[in-house]
Amino acid sequence: MKLTFSPASPFARKVRIAAIELGLIDKIEFVPTTVVPGQPNDEYSKIHPLKKLPVLILDNGDVILDSCVIVEYLDELAGGGKLIPASGAARWKVKSDHSLLQGMLDSMLLCRYENMVRPEGSRWKAWSDDHWNRAWRGMARFEQQADMLSRPLDISQIALTCVLGYADFRFADCGWRKSYPRLDTFHQKMLERPSVKISMPPAA
Amino acid sequence: MKLTFSPASPFARKVRIAAIELGLIDKIEFVPTTVVPGQPNDEYSKIHPLKKLPVLILDNGDVILDSCVIVEYLDELAGGGKLIPASGAARWKVKSDHSLLQGMLDSMLLCRYENMVRPEGSRWKAWSDDHWNRAWRGMARFEQQADMLSRPLDISQIALTCVLGYADFRFADCGWRKSYPRLDTFHQKMLERPSVKISMPPAA
Repeated sequence: MKLTFSPASPFARKVRIAAIELGLIDKIEFVPTTVVPGQPNDEYSKIHPLKKLPVLILDNGDVILDSCVIVEYLDELAGGGKLIPASGAARWKVKSDHSLLQGMLDSMLLCRYENMVRPEGSRWKAWSDDHWNRAWRGMARFEQQADMLSRPLDISQIALTCVLGYADFRFADCGWRKSYPRLDTFHQKMLERPSVKISMPPAA
Repeated sequence: MKLTFSPASPFARKVRIAAIELGLIDKIEFVPTTVVPGQPNDEYSKIHPLKKLPVLILDNGDVILDSCVIVEYLDELAGGGKLIPASGAARWKVKSDHSLLQGMLDSMLLCRYENMVRPEGSRWKAWSDDHWNRAWRGMARFEQQADMLSRPLDISQIALTCVLGYADFRFADCGWRKSYPRLDTFHQKMLERPSVKISMPPAA
């Protein structure tokens, strides 16, 4: 299998951590890929019309996307029920949390594009404030979920780790550790895992 | 169950069509909800920090999101394997197509916000062109997938219908029918379903 990848993508990082934790990392070849908002990339658009990372390309050519679906595929490949509970209320809780965290990352990327990629004269503060608030309120929700922060490893914890790592990477001064001390403790504990440590984004 | 809903949301429309097709529509109470990008909505943020539609609220208070997860939940409630194949390559194909279509809708909404909601002086054409091209290239991919357009009903076909309906609703002059005649035939066939007809967005 091949995975289109960039070390700066929090979505690709999530898949990488999951693959390590599931014991599948050696089966995946990482293909460095660069995509920039506002710029065409005709070659990569043939693989993924939305030009998003990551995409998993199976040996038979089938393409699996997005990162949420890739992680479910890898989980099934590893036997099922490893990072996503196989059934019951726990399954829907983890999948909903995962989706919320995915949306938080989307909002954080929109903030970054607004404040650091878009030409200076055409920025709209109400937009970036709105999206930052979405991510921030999402963190507040997880700060209150003591069980989520302490239960055995699942994909929502990995996704939360990628959200916090992305905050450090692109919004180093946002002060999430001070506002959300339980998330800080959680993040420190996650950093003890080699999968989390090795996948940290490069210096911004 | 309650579903936060707006007739203008293509994501909420997708869930509504799925609920009708799965025979679950009478179990869901629709809760009209308004969210506007760039504007706070403190009440709804308590339900969903990202302020997105739709959210499914179960009778025990559990919250299921986003629309992809809601549809999977409803499919399981209806017995499983109805709109999403239960296993095998078909499962990952439908889930990947569904995810691609979800991203196409995200891009179309970003285009709309850029061109119709953002203050006029702060628009960035390269951004909206990029996102429109993503949606447009996505349509091109499905235009080439004769099997997808003719197989028994699944969630990717419902999602594609919502993409095309949203194009009619917000980008009436984009000319998708002329560029993608097979999608036009597919859409006309889908419109024969009462679930699709009754859920058409209001006049723009």
